[in-house]
Amino acid sequence: MAEAIQRTDLAKWSAMQVREAIRSGRWRGTTHGGARGRLQANLVVLSKDHAFDFFRFCIYNPKPCPILDVTAIGNSEPKFAAPGADVRTDLSKYRIFKNGSFVKEVDDLLDVWRDDDHVGFLLGCSLSFEDALESNGIPLPHLRDLSRTNCVYQTNIPCVPAGLFKGRLVVSMRAIPNDKVERAVEITGRYPLAHGAPVHIGDPHEIGIDDMNDTISGKFQSLDRGETAVFWACGVTPQSVAMSAGIPEMFTHKAGHMFVSDLALDGRK
Amino acid sequence: MAEAIQRTDLAKWSAMQVREAIRSGRWRGTTHGGARGRLQANLVVLSKDHAFDFFRFCIYNPKPCPILDVTAIGNSEPKFAAPGADVRTDLSKYRIFKNGSFVKEVDDLLDVWRDDDHVGFLLGCSLSFEDALESNGIPLPHLRDLSRTNCVYQTNIPCVPAGLFKGRLVVSMRAIPNDKVERAVEITGRYPLAHGAPVHIGDPHEIGIDDMNDTISGKFQSLDRGETAVFWACGVTPQSVAMSAGIPEMFTHKAGHMFVSDLALDGRK
Repeated sequence: MAEAIQRTDLAKWSAMQVREAIRSGRWRGTTHGGARGRLQANLVVLSKDHAFDFFRFCIYNPKPCPILDVTAIGNSEPKFAAPGADVRTDLSKYRIFKNGSFVKEVDDLLDVWRDDDHVGFLLGCSLSFEDALESNGIPLPHLRDLSRTNCVYQTNIPCVPAGLFKGRLVVSMRAIPNDKVERAVEITGRYPLAHGAPVHIGDPHEIGIDDMNDTISGKFQSLDRGETAVFWACGVTPQSVAMSAGIPEMFTHKAGHMFVSDLALDGRK
Repeated sequence: MAEAIQRTDLAKWSAMQVREAIRSGRWRGTTHGGARGRLQANLVVLSKDHAFDFFRFCIYNPKPCPILDVTAIGNSEPKFAAPGADVRTDLSKYRIFKNGSFVKEVDDLLDVWRDDDHVGFLLGCSLSFEDALESNGIPLPHLRDLSRTNCVYQTNIPCVPAGLFKGRLVVSMRAIPNDKVERAVEITGRYPLAHGAPVHIGDPHEIGIDDMNDTISGKFQSLDRGETAVFWACGVTPQSVAMSAGIPEMFTHKAGHMFVSDLALDGRK
């Protein structure tokens, strides 16, 4: 019987090893900490009918939607970000949406992928820069204490629209010690493919967040004295925008169950 | 009778004024020096059948193909880079290609544009950073002496392929005084939307240029003692790649007759 995989194994593995463990069904958990030093990605799969405008939306809004790769129409291999990989099988959990509503979770997209139609977008995610923050001495309590989570919020900051795709920016908030905010800005600014520098620091009202308890996901647990709320553009934005556009069909990863790419944090191979 | 427009007028005008002078037929010359401080762009128009893979080619090869805007399918307004503009009429000279061969030059694309099909790509060009080099004390002789031109070369550096679009990088060469090369790298590196920092400095053989007289365009006139050959990724690359892919139909600007966008050199509005 195959030995059970531990999360600590995942960190030591290459991106390809993590993807293979997922593809073979040996790992179904989140990819947090997997293939350390490699960019992880949000997945959005759309029909070619909507893919062109969504592509435009991503380049117009690079902070929430940093493009790591876009597959050819009908081809499930992200040849740039991970040659040999397959976006239908290499994520540990997927979500299916129809007409803007969540329908169900599935373990792969083999039954629903259309070879003449579907396009996979891999968009950078902030899991990638959290490692860099921690290794530069900036504590992220939710990485150690699973009872703490990142909080994700809707803002009033408009995205640049493209066709059907329009809406407001979604952000993730991290509580950063006051004396480390500047350093956090500097470090994350180095990783534009993982959302880059914050979009806002401090007063949440200024970006339309009137109640810090009113999250899209995550439970707000008060800021400690000596901590500042720092807000980064979030990869939930494109999903949120695609849902409110009422796209007939969209497949995505499940939160935390990301695509692990071969790309280094600076986007190089 | 309308007064004749001088090139010196163009520099003082806004991007919109330059585009209007072109649209109304009052200016048919190159846009060199026009709307100082605004990004100028290469234009590539393709059918929607090829636009998706070309879009992918551009994001895979951001140095030769920095995307300023991509129009919606069939819509000739580049809403991000220049709201209200029209890529069919706002360039002073266009070139039409069929099946990989040049067919003719035209003054506008009104007769050939298809409202259900064509997509316009606006890709940053190096005219934009030449101003920045000059204003930082780096002389570019071809800006003052029209008998000197930039030289454009085919290299052996492969681009990352996307579908039909594959080929080697095209570069432009500028002779830079040895003691100013470092400064030229620093300055152009600030403008990734205008091809950014050089791709090569010095020996042309290292990038497959065996004879400096063997240009794609421009006439090589020997390097002065004390000058270094500096090579930047060139916006001719995507045209060259699209031509060798044998795309049935492509429209572009004529060299030097660029689209003048509203975007500042850093891509901001």
